[in-house]
Amino acid sequence: MSRREAEEGRYAYEGLDRVIHEKARLGVLVALLARPRGLPFSELKRLCGLTDGNLSRHLAVLQEDGLIAMDKRLEANRSLTTCRLTSSGRKRFSDYLAALERVVKDAKEASAAASAPSRPSAA
Amino acid sequence: MSRREAEEGRYAYEGLDRVIHEKARLGVLVALLARPRGLPFSELKRLCGLTDGNLSRHLAVLQEDGLIAMDKRLEANRSLTTCRLTSSGRKRFSDYLAALERVVKDAKEASAAASAPSRPSAA
Repeated sequence: MSRREAEEGRYAYEGLDRVIHEKARLGVLVALLARPRGLPFSELKRLCGLTDGNLSRHLAVLQEDGLIAMDKRLEANRSLTTCRLTSSGRKRFSDYLAALERVVKDAKEASAAASAPSRPSAA
Repeated sequence: MSRREAEEGRYAYEGLDRVIHEKARLGVLVALLARPRGLPFSELKRLCGLTDGNLSRHLAVLQEDGLIAMDKRLEANRSLTTCRLTSSGRKRFSDYLAALERVVKDAKEASAAASAPSRPSAA
């Protein structure tokens, strides 16, 4: 078979980095993408609809993997944690997003192919 | 805050159905999307770059959840398994893809906002 669809590993999507692909972490990264100076923990929690525990757990995974950096400081006697994408994190997230766009594009093409009337391949 | 970005749960992405979102299963579903009549196990394995064991495991999850149907028959004394999307699976996958497109769109907007020069909000 020579059709593009028939290529080995055509739908393997190796670019979908598992650390980034997890649903909650994906939301966190999109939220941080627009804010080069970072977001406070409380705001991130609110935007992503996560509990303290869940957000902490996902931030730890992202930090361990070098995707984000966390800055803790005291403000008016309260501890304030700010999270931001690292530059390498931004690059990795951008590569991931390119892979994600490919999934969307493939799915659209697949959907269009499925609903098209069948026709001879030489037509 | 009244900005759209500041809405609670803005980046929760509830539509990213976890059964579908898993990387290998996502590839399987895209591969099946274009083939309403289904794909043989061996071809699916090749297209998705999965081992027999991995593909079997993911197909079982998808079947259990009603997303795909599997048809087993004997052909020339060999067992042939064909997998296809169910109609409810196609609908659910379509809803998932709409959520995925929103992620890509949000990320593009976020990225553009981050690289735009800062300006007064009333400009």
